[in-house]
Amino acid sequence: MAQPKNIAILGASGYTGAELVRIIATHPSMKIVAMTADRKAGQTMGSVFPHLAYLDLPLLTKIEEVDFSAIDLAFCALPHGVTHGLVKSLPEHVKVVDLSADFRLRNAADYKKWYGLEHTAMDIQAEAVYGLPEFYRAEIAKARIVANTGCYVATGLLPLIPLLRAGVVDPTDIVIDAKSGVTGAGRSPKEGILFSEVSEGFQAYGVASHRHMGEFDQELSLAAGTDVTVSFTPHLLPQNRGIYSTIYAKGSAEAVLETLQKQFANERFVHVLPMGEVPATRHARGSNMCLIGVKADRTPGRVIIISTLDNLMKGASGQAVQNANLMLGLQEAAGLEFAPMFP
Amino acid sequence: MAQPKNIAILGASGYTGAELVRIIATHPSMKIVAMTADRKAGQTMGSVFPHLAYLDLPLLTKIEEVDFSAIDLAFCALPHGVTHGLVKSLPEHVKVVDLSADFRLRNAADYKKWYGLEHTAMDIQAEAVYGLPEFYRAEIAKARIVANTGCYVATGLLPLIPLLRAGVVDPTDIVIDAKSGVTGAGRSPKEGILFSEVSEGFQAYGVASHRHMGEFDQELSLAAGTDVTVSFTPHLLPQNRGIYSTIYAKGSAEAVLETLQKQFANERFVHVLPMGEVPATRHARGSNMCLIGVKADRTPGRVIIISTLDNLMKGASGQAVQNANLMLGLQEAAGLEFAPMFP
Amino acid sequence: MAQPKNIAILGASGYTGAELVRIIATHPSMKIVAMTADRKAGQTMGSVFPHLAYLDLPLLTKIEEVDFSAIDLAFCALPHGVTHGLVKSLPEHVKVVDLSADFRLRNAADYKKWYGLEHTAMDIQAEAVYGLPEFYRAEIAKARIVANTGCYVATGLLPLIPLLRAGVVDPTDIVIDAKSGVTGAGRSPKEGILFSEVSEGFQAYGVASHRHMGEFDQELSLAAGTDVTVSFTPHLLPQNRGIYSTIYAKGSAEAVLETLQKQFANERFVHVLPMGEVPATRHARGSNMCLIGVKADRTPGRVIIISTLDNLMKGASGQAVQNANLMLGLQEAAGLEFAPMFP
Amino acid sequence: MAQPKNIAILGASGYTGAELVRIIATHPSMKIVAMTADRKAGQTMGSVFPHLAYLDLPLLTKIEEVDFSAIDLAFCALPHGVTHGLVKSLPEHVKVVDLSADFRLRNAADYKKWYGLEHTAMDIQAEAVYGLPEFYRAEIAKARIVANTGCYVATGLLPLIPLLRAGVVDPTDIVIDAKSGVTGAGRSPKEGILFSEVSEGFQAYGVASHRHMGEFDQELSLAAGTDVTVSFTPHLLPQNRGIYSTIYAKGSAEAVLETLQKQFANERFVHVLPMGEVPATRHARGSNMCLIGVKADRTPGRVIIISTLDNLMKGASGQAVQNANLMLGLQEAAGLEFAPMFP
Repeated sequence: MAQPKNIAILGASGYTGAELVRIIATHPSMKIVAMTADRKAGQTMGSVFPHLAYLDLPLLTKIEEVDFSAIDLAFCALPHGVTHGLVKSLPEHVKVVDLSADFRLRNAADYKKWYGLEHTAMDIQAEAVYGLPEFYRAEIAKARIVANTGCYVATGLLPLIPLLRAGVVDPTDIVIDAKSGVTGAGRSPKEGILFSEVSEGFQAYGVASHRHMGEFDQELSLAAGTDVTVSFTPHLLPQNRGIYSTIYAKGSAEAVLETLQKQFANERFVHVLPMGEVPATRHARGSNMCLIGVKADRTPGRVIIISTLDNLMKGASGQAVQNANLMLGLQEAAGLEFAPMFP
Repeated sequence: MAQPKNIAILGASGYTGAELVRIIATHPSMKIVAMTADRKAGQTMGSVFPHLAYLDLPLLTKIEEVDFSAIDLAFCALPHGVTHGLVKSLPEHVKVVDLSADFRLRNAADYKKWYGLEHTAMDIQAEAVYGLPEFYRAEIAKARIVANTGCYVATGLLPLIPLLRAGVVDPTDIVIDAKSGVTGAGRSPKEGILFSEVSEGFQAYGVASHRHMGEFDQELSLAAGTDVTVSFTPHLLPQNRGIYSTIYAKGSAEAVLETLQKQFANERFVHVLPMGEVPATRHARGSNMCLIGVKADRTPGRVIIISTLDNLMKGASGQAVQNANLMLGLQEAAGLEFAPMFP
Repeated sequence: MAQPKNIAILGASGYTGAELVRIIATHPSMKIVAMTADRKAGQTMGSVFPHLAYLDLPLLTKIEEVDFSAIDLAFCALPHGVTHGLVKSLPEHVKVVDLSADFRLRNAADYKKWYGLEHTAMDIQAEAVYGLPEFYRAEIAKARIVANTGCYVATGLLPLIPLLRAGVVDPTDIVIDAKSGVTGAGRSPKEGILFSEVSEGFQAYGVASHRHMGEFDQELSLAAGTDVTVSFTPHLLPQNRGIYSTIYAKGSAEAVLETLQKQFANERFVHVLPMGEVPATRHARGSNMCLIGVKADRTPGRVIIISTLDNLMKGASGQAVQNANLMLGLQEAAGLEFAPMFP
Repeated sequence: MAQPKNIAILGASGYTGAELVRIIATHPSMKIVAMTADRKAGQTMGSVFPHLAYLDLPLLTKIEEVDFSAIDLAFCALPHGVTHGLVKSLPEHVKVVDLSADFRLRNAADYKKWYGLEHTAMDIQAEAVYGLPEFYRAEIAKARIVANTGCYVATGLLPLIPLLRAGVVDPTDIVIDAKSGVTGAGRSPKEGILFSEVSEGFQAYGVASHRHMGEFDQELSLAAGTDVTVSFTPHLLPQNRGIYSTIYAKGSAEAVLETLQKQFANERFVHVLPMGEVPATRHARGSNMCLIGVKADRTPGRVIIISTLDNLMKGASGQAVQNANLMLGLQEAAGLEFAPMFP
């Protein structure tokens, strides 16, 4: 067997970090050689995430303590804003999959608008590839830096990019009503994500203002060849994993289904259901799959498209490993073959 | 103190029956004198619902065993289809609040279309009043038979009726993305509502085919003065209580908010939040309240309206008691004053 | 109707504070005239707890801003350690129900041992009454300061005090395996009570070291007339409300049941189930009830006693109002009559 | 690579069947060639479990339609009582891992006592091996029929067998307070496992009467060399997966920990934590691991032992695959290497 690739996980103490470890634990060609977590430097990963205590993992360190000379690829799971500078400082030979939002927006003004910060690494942004392998596979394979898509955005783009490219839905009237499990909000303690605040409850947040809208607009406009402004409302679900986007559009359900089936016929991780079948978040839980369903609405000319995935997997760490596999010349599905876990 | 009104609960062994008992347990002017549950006749309510075992309640009986001569009002919590015949057979002096769908649709053809059954009591239908007190208060006060609104429908009608009456939203383009807690599906054992199927998961159901659409169309068309066909998609939430409708419409957010504030300024059970504030299902949990929030969407001319309530309360049994209070000449809010329960 | 009693809630921004408001909202003889929350002074209760926004409540203030001259009774829902000094500083005419642990332990050394602090108000401790009305009713009625029992402790003491007094269980061999909903841990953000950490999971904590053991030992030793050291293990349940104590003891199940039935025959808030029936946390949810079940174990001479209550109600705020009713000469059950909420 | 072993799953439509498929989907040396589900014969596994729809699996058939000539091993996930006759009818060359209780009890009278049925295949029982590989590894490797342990029983036996063998805990005074996730109750619709009955609630069941006690007594008596009758109380947790046994015993915590550490030092699937550390069900979720923690109680001479595992994995299907690996001469951990899933 070939030598495994040496992997660093920068920002390993969050849920996406733990999920990267879960995946790589049985990945046939990756080996974790460095893990960082600034505030938890010196601790074992097992003390931060006891479910991983049985694994033989490097100690958590500060980023500046990492010897990058032997690293093939770094997963960057740090907050946006921090990542710019960091990626700039990494040696050229290190490939990067960035799970933050820092290199997703091609335009500095958009970044400023949605994240409230000046972008300080637009030169690196210029070489970054948008990390949705189903549409940018060839570019990702050659990239040094890949900007992993946002979790909500992944659910929307997977069905909508091919539909807008093919012109089968009206780009001026798209509503995305999206719902996410709580892990999407991270592990930092905040009142709003306490068990007693979230369980037995449901609500919208970021109405008409969520940051993922910039990313939606960018990629959907590219696909449509015209400016697209979606209506996007995220909601918080009382469950750990899963994003579910119910998309209301104008177009023929038959054309929509046919376009999606053709687009994804050979994709390992995107499954288009037969006409009228409705996916559920639990059908993708723990796996790297995105499931898409299509149904005609009652009103002629309207179609409902439903897209679901596990936000920690195809919405974050699974997608990241899929991108890394491409960048490292490995099988695209390596380490990602495991089945969804239900119940 | 005046003599309390004698109440019968027909179909007491479901969740709406238990919720009626919970409310009436501390209602100052109602007394439960008969409770029926055909398959559980002869049992105590406490054996069916142990949380109610401490109350002094009549035994569960079959309907034919009830002496209706002393009954002032019957809550009918039976399945649709069954209720027609039953209500027909009740003595004239018994007022009825029907929680089923049997008397909600004014038109026999609509009933046939959505429920697949011939309506066999259209004469009684003719005198039934649609049970949404905020709009039909005077009629309800005089009615013998009131058809309690459907739970999903209540969340949609409360904001949309005044908006369509006032002409401040476009009746041709309304999307209602609705989410409900599991109690809405009742207590009869079915695989789809088992704990292990529902928890940690989310999905749509009845896409483009849910029965509540007939009721939506009827009432919204009346309000708009023109045929309205909403796009309505229900989803199942992994929680017990709560309906949450995210409504996408065309209109001015300011006009929408102003119309709603004016409409509901003096309503005890409908609360319109300040511009941009977002309600949550947990803010209404266990109470008879409906909370409504309004925010302008990013695209000029689009507005997002959010409406939430507890499906067992304002969506069913709370609404039913509110209607009954009106019908019996009691204070409209009697027995319904308790606060929401959070957490 | 008599003038309602003027109530202050000190430390109103936690879950027990919100629960006090929920109860008093429909209490016939109490009126909230002051509410404090140091870090949230100046805010409305509705901004801290949106489910209470519809109520007409005083603004949150700092404690020093409260005019105590017109206050009849203060509920103190502050952290232990803080409460000593505060209660000392209150005017003599103000009755106090303290929900913290500060006045529960009669002995300064025990307080030091379990809470790690010197007790600075032992003079006040001397006049404080232990707040379990089923056993200290007369003393509570005359008390100025009542120390509300701990939530876990309430589930254990209600069955065990009468059993030890009667000598029907062996005081040297009692195991209390207890489980609590998450609200018992409060509302301050901590990693361990985030939704994603708690949901779909279960674990013990504070094994052989939980602070409530001091309170258990004190009250059970008093009841037994000999030193009692229980084995007590608390666990965290993935649910909001409910404490469930499974108690393993040596004694005759028949004698146990008979003793409990006799003890609680006339108690409004303690219900002893028929032999072999098993209570559930949901049967008490939202109410002030404690439910107790008894069953003989397989091994002759061993008995299993199960006790459950809602930790925010009979385990905290409901108990507090019950105590306050006694102290203020009101009906003991006033404001606490509402039924459990299920589902 | 060697030819994969041909596997049949009999009774594939329950949760343990789905879990077997999840495991075998990435097992390097097993291939599912037949799946049965009498009432769902003719359906695809994907229609019964949509999360498995993407896999290439045989159609569900009736058992009598299976060609057993090419089957190496059958997993039997059928109800107890049914399994006797079935296993009897299988060709001699087919190895069997039985997940039911039918071959666990060595004594026909015990079977009658706990399951209420005559045992009709005691000849086969005589050759069946009790399927706990950590203690019966050599026997399992040679067995034709292995009786997979019960889920509760596995959590108890793993720590208690070595402790009783070594004589470090008192066999006359063992209390096992056990809690299980809902999947342990299966997928057949019953009121008691509906979402609205289980969520936000907790309760004991089968107090002093649960069937697993027969299995406990048998194996613990064998280990102790004297009759052991444990006190065992199961409870239902509002979560899908996980069993958690809090065990109260008399013995030295140090001796207990040392015995367990020695026993399990080289076991891949049993992890003994450092003194005083407490496991959680989520730390084992989705994996084949059992985690064990030990702490001295306050009372000298008493020890608390906590054991947790995923009831569908080490408590059922994971254990079954581990047994099958041994029986088929494969690596014991083959197909079971994946990490726990948290959150």
